[in-house]
Amino acid sequence: MTKWKEIDRNAKSWIMEAGQRIKQSFSKTLTIETKSNANDLVTDIDKNTEQFFIKKIKEHYPDHKILGEEGFGDDISDLKGIVWIIDPIDGTMNFIHQQRNFAISIGIYEDGIGQVGLIYDVVHDELYHTIKGNGVFLNELPLPSLQEVQVNEAIIGINATWVTENKRINPLLLAPLVKHARGTRSYGSAAIEMAYIASGRMDAYISLRLAPWDIAAGIILVEELGGIATTLKGAPLNLLEKNSLFISKPGLHKDVMKNYLNDGNW
Amino acid sequence: MTKWKEIDRNAKSWIMEAGQRIKQSFSKTLTIETKSNANDLVTDIDKNTEQFFIKKIKEHYPDHKILGEEGFGDDISDLKGIVWIIDPIDGTMNFIHQQRNFAISIGIYEDGIGQVGLIYDVVHDELYHTIKGNGVFLNELPLPSLQEVQVNEAIIGINATWVTENKRINPLLLAPLVKHARGTRSYGSAAIEMAYIASGRMDAYISLRLAPWDIAAGIILVEELGGIATTLKGAPLNLLEKNSLFISKPGLHKDVMKNYLNDGNW
Repeated sequence: MTKWKEIDRNAKSWIMEAGQRIKQSFSKTLTIETKSNANDLVTDIDKNTEQFFIKKIKEHYPDHKILGEEGFGDDISDLKGIVWIIDPIDGTMNFIHQQRNFAISIGIYEDGIGQVGLIYDVVHDELYHTIKGNGVFLNELPLPSLQEVQVNEAIIGINATWVTENKRINPLLLAPLVKHARGTRSYGSAAIEMAYIASGRMDAYISLRLAPWDIAAGIILVEELGGIATTLKGAPLNLLEKNSLFISKPGLHKDVMKNYLNDGNW
Repeated sequence: MTKWKEIDRNAKSWIMEAGQRIKQSFSKTLTIETKSNANDLVTDIDKNTEQFFIKKIKEHYPDHKILGEEGFGDDISDLKGIVWIIDPIDGTMNFIHQQRNFAISIGIYEDGIGQVGLIYDVVHDELYHTIKGNGVFLNELPLPSLQEVQVNEAIIGINATWVTENKRINPLLLAPLVKHARGTRSYGSAAIEMAYIASGRMDAYISLRLAPWDIAAGIILVEELGGIATTLKGAPLNLLEKNSLFISKPGLHKDVMKNYLNDGNW
């Protein structure tokens, strides 16, 4: 426990420092490159931020491993030992278009178990953080456990992409859920949408293809508060590959799995 | 012009005061009533805020008319003279679930022409404001004119509702636009989504059924920067009834009307 407290303290200090650097960079021109396509934008700041974390972690914890979006971390084939899973800027498109609504996401795992989770919504200065077993905090405020909720009372994070023709899922499968929910939202950052479940601002979040660094911190935060995170088929998430994600308050997860995502519907 | 400067100064002062009252109310329990259904929530604060504006306007401008969401204003059948069109809390569902991502929206019209527009994103303390012909400001920052943009570079505000079965539109009509756009978002407040177009954070916003108070301020702001606001069929908006809305940057509006929303597609 002492070990995790120290790691958490360092991670917080680094994430706040990285956030400051990002905010200062807004005045400079952004150099934007495209990775594989126009929707997959990467900036210098993305890369520099990841390298900042790697340098700090390697200095303090030379035996820890790092899995990061920009690929400057380690080449990882298992989750043995302590692994930091980092997205330096989750929501790159928002970062570029909006200069807001992006987050730094850090999940720290030991032998595959999430121990420390941090999501920092940089521009709104909201740091969500947890040490497993010690509750979740939004800045200094402790967040209450997640309560059960019905579909017709729920606000669900889901992008319009997943209910129109796409490569991942039959668009008709999720349409009834959109129809029956109280409302849907889409913020364009998986980390922020999961942080919004932790803080009760949304009740569930669905996405079809997320990388480990998109979800590593969010699932620690939401599970710590009693929420459930699985693939859309209800299977455990695998942090070594891309996954679909259905993460939600407890009763809602069961209800949606049974009535909207059961085997017969696929 | 002097007249509008004074009206603008008063409106700003009242909107900031109303915002302060709303923020102070968060600590108190919200008394929530349902209007016609569970998605149409109204709170005491909504009503009190509208009454606050009506009192101020009637004191200072007894000959002005008021059209407000909560119905405490005047019974209006035309837009002759000066009419304040007010939504005390746009994004009531966000207000209740999130205590953020809602706005106060005030559009002031003379003989049907928008003269002063104000949208106040209360929790993020962002006031978008314009006096027609004098540019748009986000707090003290002047916003640049909107530039032309292509569909494949555009972030479009559209809720998943409008591409699944619904009462207003064939869900297949907008699906190709969702597919071809760079991305879609949904924030749950028409006023904030229109303010996001003014500030360049989004490129277009589409909704199928909005009341005059949802859009009155946003169209003044966006048009002042060279954006275009029409119904989804390209017709002028009517501020005495509900409308569909397609509001966007200039080139994008023409492109989407021609290639996605032309007569042949409906």
